[in-house]
Amino acid sequence: MGLKRKKISVIGSGFTGATTALMIAQKELGDVVLVDIPNMEKPTKGKALDMAEAAPVQGFDAKITGTANYEETKDSDLVIITAGIARKPGMSRDDLVNTNAKIMKAVTQDVVKYSPDTTIIVLTNPVDAMTYTVFKESGFPKERVIGQSGVLDTARFRTFIAEELNLSVKDVTGFVLGGHGDDMVPLIRYSYAGGIPLEKLISKDRLDEIVQRTRTGGGEIVHLLGNGSAYYAPAASLTVMAEAILKDQRRVLPAIAYLEGEYGYNNIYLGVPTILGGNGIEEIIELDLTKEEKEALDKSAASVKNVLKVLS
Amino acid sequence: MGLKRKKISVIGSGFTGATTALMIAQKELGDVVLVDIPNMEKPTKGKALDMAEAAPVQGFDAKITGTANYEETKDSDLVIITAGIARKPGMSRDDLVNTNAKIMKAVTQDVVKYSPDTTIIVLTNPVDAMTYTVFKESGFPKERVIGQSGVLDTARFRTFIAEELNLSVKDVTGFVLGGHGDDMVPLIRYSYAGGIPLEKLISKDRLDEIVQRTRTGGGEIVHLLGNGSAYYAPAASLTVMAEAILKDQRRVLPAIAYLEGEYGYNNIYLGVPTILGGNGIEEIIELDLTKEEKEALDKSAASVKNVLKVLS
Amino acid sequence: MGLKRKKISVIGSGFTGATTALMIAQKELGDVVLVDIPNMEKPTKGKALDMAEAAPVQGFDAKITGTANYEETKDSDLVIITAGIARKPGMSRDDLVNTNAKIMKAVTQDVVKYSPDTTIIVLTNPVDAMTYTVFKESGFPKERVIGQSGVLDTARFRTFIAEELNLSVKDVTGFVLGGHGDDMVPLIRYSYAGGIPLEKLISKDRLDEIVQRTRTGGGEIVHLLGNGSAYYAPAASLTVMAEAILKDQRRVLPAIAYLEGEYGYNNIYLGVPTILGGNGIEEIIELDLTKEEKEALDKSAASVKNVLKVLS
Amino acid sequence: MGLKRKKISVIGSGFTGATTALMIAQKELGDVVLVDIPNMEKPTKGKALDMAEAAPVQGFDAKITGTANYEETKDSDLVIITAGIARKPGMSRDDLVNTNAKIMKAVTQDVVKYSPDTTIIVLTNPVDAMTYTVFKESGFPKERVIGQSGVLDTARFRTFIAEELNLSVKDVTGFVLGGHGDDMVPLIRYSYAGGIPLEKLISKDRLDEIVQRTRTGGGEIVHLLGNGSAYYAPAASLTVMAEAILKDQRRVLPAIAYLEGEYGYNNIYLGVPTILGGNGIEEIIELDLTKEEKEALDKSAASVKNVLKVLS
Repeated sequence: MGLKRKKISVIGSGFTGATTALMIAQKELGDVVLVDIPNMEKPTKGKALDMAEAAPVQGFDAKITGTANYEETKDSDLVIITAGIARKPGMSRDDLVNTNAKIMKAVTQDVVKYSPDTTIIVLTNPVDAMTYTVFKESGFPKERVIGQSGVLDTARFRTFIAEELNLSVKDVTGFVLGGHGDDMVPLIRYSYAGGIPLEKLISKDRLDEIVQRTRTGGGEIVHLLGNGSAYYAPAASLTVMAEAILKDQRRVLPAIAYLEGEYGYNNIYLGVPTILGGNGIEEIIELDLTKEEKEALDKSAASVKNVLKVLS
Repeated sequence: MGLKRKKISVIGSGFTGATTALMIAQKELGDVVLVDIPNMEKPTKGKALDMAEAAPVQGFDAKITGTANYEETKDSDLVIITAGIARKPGMSRDDLVNTNAKIMKAVTQDVVKYSPDTTIIVLTNPVDAMTYTVFKESGFPKERVIGQSGVLDTARFRTFIAEELNLSVKDVTGFVLGGHGDDMVPLIRYSYAGGIPLEKLISKDRLDEIVQRTRTGGGEIVHLLGNGSAYYAPAASLTVMAEAILKDQRRVLPAIAYLEGEYGYNNIYLGVPTILGGNGIEEIIELDLTKEEKEALDKSAASVKNVLKVLS
Repeated sequence: MGLKRKKISVIGSGFTGATTALMIAQKELGDVVLVDIPNMEKPTKGKALDMAEAAPVQGFDAKITGTANYEETKDSDLVIITAGIARKPGMSRDDLVNTNAKIMKAVTQDVVKYSPDTTIIVLTNPVDAMTYTVFKESGFPKERVIGQSGVLDTARFRTFIAEELNLSVKDVTGFVLGGHGDDMVPLIRYSYAGGIPLEKLISKDRLDEIVQRTRTGGGEIVHLLGNGSAYYAPAASLTVMAEAILKDQRRVLPAIAYLEGEYGYNNIYLGVPTILGGNGIEEIIELDLTKEEKEALDKSAASVKNVLKVLS
Repeated sequence: MGLKRKKISVIGSGFTGATTALMIAQKELGDVVLVDIPNMEKPTKGKALDMAEAAPVQGFDAKITGTANYEETKDSDLVIITAGIARKPGMSRDDLVNTNAKIMKAVTQDVVKYSPDTTIIVLTNPVDAMTYTVFKESGFPKERVIGQSGVLDTARFRTFIAEELNLSVKDVTGFVLGGHGDDMVPLIRYSYAGGIPLEKLISKDRLDEIVQRTRTGGGEIVHLLGNGSAYYAPAASLTVMAEAILKDQRRVLPAIAYLEGEYGYNNIYLGVPTILGGNGIEEIIELDLTKEEKEALDKSAASVKNVLKVLS
């Protein structure tokens, strides 16, 4: 008996997965198991060990394990899936979708086998469809399978706005609906600096530019890095969602949730405002949308449905 | 006028440099400039942007700039040098030393040009010789040129001991003298768990094994990763040294310092216990050594001298 | 030379002053000098010593000094004034105002003598008038004399709203103008939960009740304590303002600022949205007000003017 | 189901109890219930509300409840007892012991009734005897009833040493055995600055003075405050013990533990080095003592036994 630490498994030991593992450990949210496929076992162990060696210096207590054996994820309180491939030159989008869906199914089976009561957060792209795949494969209740996109999209938006206004990032908020990146539906009227609607502080044209930059924010990093994609901000986004669930904080965060009638959609995973707490998605917040916003969201939903068709 | 944030420049935007930049920003120690050579400018900017986009989520205020232009480092309060190449297959050690020394000289000139009053921490390997090179090239007083090795070596040692005894890393300490890695001179009698000398808690044989694992701790990670070397624990180590200096904490930390008679050595940079504060190395702590320890330290010093000979 | 810690002086070692000193030290914002009058010197030293003895356990480095000698505040980067008396039974409001004004003048002279370039935050009640008094007495530029009320008022409001909606306090914001407490002018339309305007989430009647509870939030604590007034939330409020200035964060926070035409007022200190950074109040944000809001603000300003009349 | 926050009850809403409640909430270790007797119910609620109102500003999520109803402590993961009276002028020590023992018994019955599986930390003085009383009254296994004294005693010692050597408190450690305050048995040979034994850094005479100051450290604060006793450092000490247990950190901390043969004593609670983790006291560390140390510990144990005799 006695009080035990929570256990968080991160599937995929690439830069995003590894950085997420570190951030979770730094916050002492629990012990972390970093998992990858057998032929990545050694580098996965290497990253876990390197992180563990940072612990005495940074002063955090968390066991960090690198492994290719899902048995070590047994009884996880939370599982974060970052596994999957990035689109390679010459690869069709459909090939990407099908490859990653296959990975999601395999990962989900392994996760569910050892942690039938856990909650799962999915990051793998295309994230709406991949979250849907994990949901179906897991047989979990909808509140325990969640996708990440809005926390990252608004983080980028907030960064650009804070820079534009030369203000603390702590005081800038953003609000998005719908899919990740290009399909993002920003709700500017619900975005603020110090509580003041951005529309009062920045011209419409400049706001449009910043929204557009946000939409393509992932691509901007890909283009700059030349090789690979963003991982610091995605990892921070996953970590804040993990913290909300592990500490039962009931935070209001955008998340990819399974819709059953909300916003007029069914049988789809889509980005909406949610309350994240100890039960996963504890609530989906429904807002009245303007005609323009609803149309944009319809378009975003249609785009997700199109990807889902590839899967069947 | 007014109160300004401190400014920290990190030279070299590889994994260690980038992770150090992030950790410094997370602690809000100041604004960070991440610098690399012109043909790495875009990925450097990409990493800096990705980190900046993590700031709203993690709630830290720090400007993070990626650049290839040293002008942006102007008036840095602290400069951390992580630039340099790793030894490639077929490359002799002397080639490595000379290549990195050349890099150190170029970097130092650029750093000093824009921040003549800064303090410099060096991580590049072979770190004792590279710190010496930066010292000579900078013309700085000795207290403002410092090498990192002991914080990392003891971090690894502490990790292994905490695991061995199943205790919090917060309560395990280690103590080393001399060069990095193989040349490390551990002072086990000054290493404790909860204040209790390790020799009372762990058998001599097992301690010897752990010391040996610590010596080759860098190599263990290199071997596991297969491609590249450790960066999480090195970055954490640089960050704690940076914090001690930037916040004038007068922490007792092992550091590579210029010796003028201390421990019987002259005109050499070697790992010794120091007090790090607002003036850089504020003091070198001299300890009585056993005959065995002194011999090991002599060997370590000789090894550093050998590398220095390559430079001339 | 070298890097030095910042220095913060807290005038008044009562519960609010002492708690503020501790919170500033815990955040390692700098060294803290806690000052009170000569016949309180010993308890002031006692509190400072007790705090200093918490430092090794909590792991913060900050020198905390208790004193009755203003010489020890020399060259403070920031001064926080919490000194003053609370209204006693049978004391008229005018007596309170004049007594505390006299204290403000004496304190200000001592502060300015030793720290002519510092920034001052005032908490003493009635805070609008006391901030005005310190401003006049100091001869400082207006941006360097600031009063606290809105951070505390919105903190209370946010607490009540988060409880009402069962949400994380991290995701609830509030917005006020005008004087402290009874004179508070809440801008509900700029107050949100997760970015969603509160009016969409809570009925108008219930919101009115919560606003009313916020207005009398100080009194609620006084009534419960039976003896003395709130100090935890006031100290946290002072600390966040201090942090914004000391770390040059340019945060958007409500503060009591000197108005020269803003919102149509002159020669008065009144609660308005500001940007706090390294220069103190770096900007006052002017908003369009509804007729009803402007009337409420006029009433609040008139009430402050009435108190100021007592002073002359 | 779902993930729930931990629950910590703090009995006694005086300054130490209240400050402990705040520190636990600030660290988001769980929800906090602050309990006092019925005629203190209102101020207890007032302090809890004031703390809750600090949460949005400091950014912590924790429900803080003030109450006189033990039902609200139901299913606590940890209970901290700070209740009790301080010795008043004219009161004999025996009267103090018996009064506080009576309080301990009543509190323990209420605690155990609602949280039969919890762990209890006792602060009330004379703490060795009061912890023994709670142990007997609770019927709990010995590992789940723990007294606080050594963390505070070493905190004071570390503060004085850090000041003496002008070093970071982070790098100074201390080690004590035996009773609180006057009965404290310091193990100087296990006390270090940066890992270096203090005896090498400070003269024996000066060390003796610092040890003596530590022994009377509680009295020093009482004398300075004039009215009341220390609470910041005691609260920090309780919090670090609470954290070690709640996060299952297996920290090496001095604690008052029930001895069954360890160090040659039986049926007594005495300060010894322990490992604190999810099971409470997971281990008592036995050290070889010098003859002098053993004699001092015998004296300390005898003194505790004398107090226990008063109880029967």
